[in-house]
Amino acid sequence: MTITASDSAGQLWEAHWASAVGNISSSAIRELLKVTEEPGVISFAGGLPSPDCFPAEEIALAAERVLANEAGRVLQYGPTEGFPPLRAFLVELMRARGLSIGPEHLLVTNGSQQGLDMIAKLLVDPGDVVLVEEPTYVGALQAFRPYRPRFVTLPMDDDGLQIEGVERALADLAAAGQAPKFLYTVASFQNPTGVTLSAERRRALIALAARHGLPIVEDDPYGELRYSGAAPPLLAALDIERHGAPRHVLYLSTFSKLLVPGLRVGWAVAPEVLLRRMVQVKQGLDLHTSSLAQAIAYEACRDGLLARQIPRIRAVYQQRRDAMLGALEQYLPAGARWTKPDGGMFLWITLPASYNTTDLLARALERKVAFVPGGAFHANGGGTNTMRLNFSFSPPDTIVEGVRRLSEVFKAALG
Amino acid sequence: MTITASDSAGQLWEAHWASAVGNISSSAIRELLKVTEEPGVISFAGGLPSPDCFPAEEIALAAERVLANEAGRVLQYGPTEGFPPLRAFLVELMRARGLSIGPEHLLVTNGSQQGLDMIAKLLVDPGDVVLVEEPTYVGALQAFRPYRPRFVTLPMDDDGLQIEGVERALADLAAAGQAPKFLYTVASFQNPTGVTLSAERRRALIALAARHGLPIVEDDPYGELRYSGAAPPLLAALDIERHGAPRHVLYLSTFSKLLVPGLRVGWAVAPEVLLRRMVQVKQGLDLHTSSLAQAIAYEACRDGLLARQIPRIRAVYQQRRDAMLGALEQYLPAGARWTKPDGGMFLWITLPASYNTTDLLARALERKVAFVPGGAFHANGGGTNTMRLNFSFSPPDTIVEGVRRLSEVFKAALG
Repeated sequence: MTITASDSAGQLWEAHWASAVGNISSSAIRELLKVTEEPGVISFAGGLPSPDCFPAEEIALAAERVLANEAGRVLQYGPTEGFPPLRAFLVELMRARGLSIGPEHLLVTNGSQQGLDMIAKLLVDPGDVVLVEEPTYVGALQAFRPYRPRFVTLPMDDDGLQIEGVERALADLAAAGQAPKFLYTVASFQNPTGVTLSAERRRALIALAARHGLPIVEDDPYGELRYSGAAPPLLAALDIERHGAPRHVLYLSTFSKLLVPGLRVGWAVAPEVLLRRMVQVKQGLDLHTSSLAQAIAYEACRDGLLARQIPRIRAVYQQRRDAMLGALEQYLPAGARWTKPDGGMFLWITLPASYNTTDLLARALERKVAFVPGGAFHANGGGTNTMRLNFSFSPPDTIVEGVRRLSEVFKAALG
Repeated sequence: MTITASDSAGQLWEAHWASAVGNISSSAIRELLKVTEEPGVISFAGGLPSPDCFPAEEIALAAERVLANEAGRVLQYGPTEGFPPLRAFLVELMRARGLSIGPEHLLVTNGSQQGLDMIAKLLVDPGDVVLVEEPTYVGALQAFRPYRPRFVTLPMDDDGLQIEGVERALADLAAAGQAPKFLYTVASFQNPTGVTLSAERRRALIALAARHGLPIVEDDPYGELRYSGAAPPLLAALDIERHGAPRHVLYLSTFSKLLVPGLRVGWAVAPEVLLRRMVQVKQGLDLHTSSLAQAIAYEACRDGLLARQIPRIRAVYQQRRDAMLGALEQYLPAGARWTKPDGGMFLWITLPASYNTTDLLARALERKVAFVPGGAFHANGGGTNTMRLNFSFSPPDTIVEGVRRLSEVFKAALG
């Protein structure tokens, strides 16, 4: 290394980067969001919950209470595992979701995103295989990539992951003497497609995990946001049912979509052996999640706010989903296909193969409508004719107008 | 891999750990803190600021205001770089500390701890050399270790890092064809020793960094907590002075010791090329730091709270430091040496080589007084006759009584 005083800062730091840096890049969505903040743009690009649903008064009251009654505690350093009353509350919430666990299985995180970094840090050496859905959540790819995994993508349909696809991937890997470190899935109202893994396939996946000794990361930010259909059991619930305690599944969830994202409070449910390691990792990462944010989340929710919030959010988002589905039906050209999610915040459009949605985005922005091109959600490339639309952020009228604008973009591209 | 359904969760996960896991362990201090929470124990073990100094009313008022006036913004997702008004505020605060920077050099983090994880992720491949003080902040070791660096320790005295020691380490490494990825230092009121790098040595270190192309991580949580003596310039300020812009120094600081730790709001100042990479890493880690915590920190500080807080904290901690220094003088046996910090929260005791402070801790806890044995602060072992004492948490009378109890432990061990 022969860096000298005359070299630039760029040369200095580039000479010192770890190998991981070649695998680190900015999220296309986040860069895009900067453009879509311009006035007049109808954005289906972000993944923002609607601020119309924020329980701002309840949160203000919660903040007032915890700061009046226990400032010394909620402003001080706290345990890495989480603010004890919140942890106890979340154990109960998990039981209500069908996970019979104890506090020894639960850790509070900075949004569920932090759980993704932690599991990759604990499991992934460079070159290790991680199984991901195709398409998959781009933020998971971003969390995993610095650890330099090799992604093997799994095929999906309208019922989520195809189990035969998982079996085939495992068999191919075994034939090559390899086994994946874990399978990552957003099983309910997937980001980006909105599809949900069927109950039958969930049971098959948990059986398969047991047979192959396969760890599963179940990322569940949206599960409660159901507008139609019946809820299948959580993968984590089936895992506990089968083994008597958490065994194969790391379950991640968050307050971001049910309460507000700005608190950055999520949680992880894991087998004890994994949870203890996650706590150690989190000590090094940031000591613990904001005591105040945790105390506010607890204080706001302790008297049943979520039970009032969830129906309220469902009612608003269902209207918006219906508005988007109706407008797509009305405006989209022949040959376009899209998912019909029973919940969540997103749906997924597949255009005829000749379309390139990255090219279309430039034209869409000229017409003041935005979406996310599907390429970024594909771990190993592809998906150039796909796109993700968010339906939770804008009111129904705006959604219809946005889809109308989109259809003009598609027509112009055809012409 | 031949894990089957009959294996335990422990066997399953142990078969999947990454190589990093062998390097991940719990902080001895955090485990210890659990014991010291028992009533009647005088704890010099923690690193807690005194809740007597928390500006709880100002924070409650700030929370009330931001939730009344801009709930939609402070409860929503926000930019990874940080809440824009807080970033602008911190740029000004940094200018007041002698760093002429722009917002392009500043990123909000989850406490300064998160900056330590990020820099290791960006720079350290397994086996890479990281230079650390001996002793050094145990939380930094914990943040760095999952990336599997080789630590080379640097000798210190009452004026901080010995520059000849740094030069010798660099020369030895160069002779072996190696160069360190960075040097980590808590230059002001170091954790654990309380010593401060002299102004002259700071200039020498920055010159040496320029000559050798050496990145430096300056971790500065305590710099404003000065009770005696004159403040030397920050390493980051000298770096900017020399190069016209941030070049070699990543500077980390935090609200934890000046406002409250429970917000978990810190910040990083870095050369642009590094800062852009840190933003990308943080997207994968947790998207962004709590919008609400950032907004509260900004709202509480915008009208000059820090200028009122800092003298208040200094007055309280100075009394406590003086009480501890006086009690050590009165009670400690011949042969014990200790540092006399001009600020911060900690001091460091070195006992005659025959003492083992880990053994002493068990006896100390019997007498209801706690400290941290020095071994954990030594990256490569050693320091078995050293210990860290915190003087910020307990009032002066309690400190004197605690030191008296400690002296009994020492005497009993001698006898």
